[in-house]
Amino acid sequence: MKTFSIKRPDRAIAAQLQDKIDDLTKPKGSLGLLEETALRIGVIQQTLTPTLSKPYNLVFAGDHGIADEGVSATVKEVTRQMVYNFIGGGAGVSVFARQHNIGLKVIDSGVDHDFEGHPELVHKKIAFGTRNFLYEPAMTHEELHLALERGAEVVDDIHREGSNVVSFGEMGIGNTSCSSMLMTMLHNVPLEKTVGAGSGLDNKGVQHKLDILSRAKASYKGDRSAFDIIAHFSGYEMAMITGGMLRAAELGMVILVDGFNITASLMAAAALHPEVLDYCIYSHKSNEGAHKLMLDILGGTPLLQLELRLGEGTGALVAYPILESAICMINNMSSFSAAKVTRSFN
Amino acid sequence: MKTFSIKRPDRAIAAQLQDKIDDLTKPKGSLGLLEETALRIGVIQQTLTPTLSKPYNLVFAGDHGIADEGVSATVKEVTRQMVYNFIGGGAGVSVFARQHNIGLKVIDSGVDHDFEGHPELVHKKIAFGTRNFLYEPAMTHEELHLALERGAEVVDDIHREGSNVVSFGEMGIGNTSCSSMLMTMLHNVPLEKTVGAGSGLDNKGVQHKLDILSRAKASYKGDRSAFDIIAHFSGYEMAMITGGMLRAAELGMVILVDGFNITASLMAAAALHPEVLDYCIYSHKSNEGAHKLMLDILGGTPLLQLELRLGEGTGALVAYPILESAICMINNMSSFSAAKVTRSFN
Repeated sequence: MKTFSIKRPDRAIAAQLQDKIDDLTKPKGSLGLLEETALRIGVIQQTLTPTLSKPYNLVFAGDHGIADEGVSATVKEVTRQMVYNFIGGGAGVSVFARQHNIGLKVIDSGVDHDFEGHPELVHKKIAFGTRNFLYEPAMTHEELHLALERGAEVVDDIHREGSNVVSFGEMGIGNTSCSSMLMTMLHNVPLEKTVGAGSGLDNKGVQHKLDILSRAKASYKGDRSAFDIIAHFSGYEMAMITGGMLRAAELGMVILVDGFNITASLMAAAALHPEVLDYCIYSHKSNEGAHKLMLDILGGTPLLQLELRLGEGTGALVAYPILESAICMINNMSSFSAAKVTRSFN
Repeated sequence: MKTFSIKRPDRAIAAQLQDKIDDLTKPKGSLGLLEETALRIGVIQQTLTPTLSKPYNLVFAGDHGIADEGVSATVKEVTRQMVYNFIGGGAGVSVFARQHNIGLKVIDSGVDHDFEGHPELVHKKIAFGTRNFLYEPAMTHEELHLALERGAEVVDDIHREGSNVVSFGEMGIGNTSCSSMLMTMLHNVPLEKTVGAGSGLDNKGVQHKLDILSRAKASYKGDRSAFDIIAHFSGYEMAMITGGMLRAAELGMVILVDGFNITASLMAAAALHPEVLDYCIYSHKSNEGAHKLMLDILGGTPLLQLELRLGEGTGALVAYPILESAICMINNMSSFSAAKVTRSFN
């Protein structure tokens, strides 16, 4: 059984990082969130000269039993269709990964389709979709352990290649329902505050989704431990992301967090090991309404607010150059003394 | 005397652009502001396959008579010191331009220092700083005409090199005072809503700045035409930016607008030729408080909200990859039919 041991980064270095940032040729604080981001990465890496190397976006895909209840505006087949689109190079995530020269891996976590042996996929399939959590746990405890382990393996692979920064993407028709359930069950958020349009439900569709999820919540008979809640309501792709995040934190990597479903996977990770949050940078605030509340619960400040709600890790990819700007700032800007520039009075 | 003739782009193509964007493999609207940005650039360029080529950030520098009244937290010498820092490669703008391979030109518009013949500067100096607008117009009408013309020349140069997208930066101790005055005089915004900390004034400093600017406003005896207001209260670097923007619009270029002082220069441009606004994309909302109000007046939606307030064009540079993402999206993502992906119901 996979266990994780995450050490919180030592914050003693934060003061030195702040001094270095304040000595760069700019009014104090005038690079706003870039300064905070540079400091955060410096603390994670325990260095005054942080770097980003071999960034990867890992897209996990899986199907969901709950999709049978009509909780999505999109048919289930789209999960596998989009997997082919990712590796074909035409999806949003493919395009933005190429733009920034970010590695892209697509992982079959549990799609309801046989991809066996496909050379461009990472094969970690647990089953052909989860069970319908309206009636039974989406996965067994054994399957959840396996999912955490397999997600961690994918992160181990990129870490061995020299990657020190990772983002996660997901594809799985129905998975905003999982995220809503994790939010309501792990943090006691009223269900109606967690449910949104997903890939494009109209008001009637959102009401139906809320009805289904209310019934699922009422019928839950688990033991209320985080582990049991995650096994009951998560998905194979999201549980692998949870495991991948825990492993990334254990390895001291920077985790660039995407939108609603990825943040829900992080909520699950933090419910198991809260130290994981110290390794996270929040790439954007999604247009899926409940994401804002999720970020507030986790204490995360998003870099971007571009009204994105596509998933796949696209928000993290679009935000990646902002991280690079923070790194360029702290490593490459001149200090006041080196550039012979007079400081402001304040 | 320089005149400008700006044609509004034909919006007829917008519907075709929207159809193309809606046919990409993603839930409709799920790429938020990236979609709006791609559409806007497509309309400016009158094409369904917009491009960005040879981006430039043009940093104009000049000194200001009003700085003698103690309206800044920074001494006047910093204008020239920072010019050397720009070309030395150590300023924020230098670092971010290198990061994104964006051309950087530094233009002496009117710094109180003799740079004559310096090989790494563009020489457009009008005088060694403007006059103090507390007592007299910052510049004559002839000087304003000259500044508009010289700003336009710099844009002509990059356009000849093949550039179709430009951002502007400014350096000039005291110039947030110019921006506040332009805002209050051109749009009747109460002065106290336009005045902020600039490079780092404390509350007492902001109050002093407000007192000085109130006196300057009360003593203005001009004819209330936009041209006279700009001559009275702008600066050489800001007036060149105003001219550069007008020329960029005339040439059909995309203008990526930076923060407070650049948006004030755009306000001046729009007061002369409102059509210029059709060519603008707003890179960020600055932490200089009045910038939000400025964007509201101009109807601009900022891409980033990173609490930047450095100037130099840094916000535009940090936002540039977002524009590129929009272009990658519209040109490189697959359509539903090409990727054989089923559409959502809505």
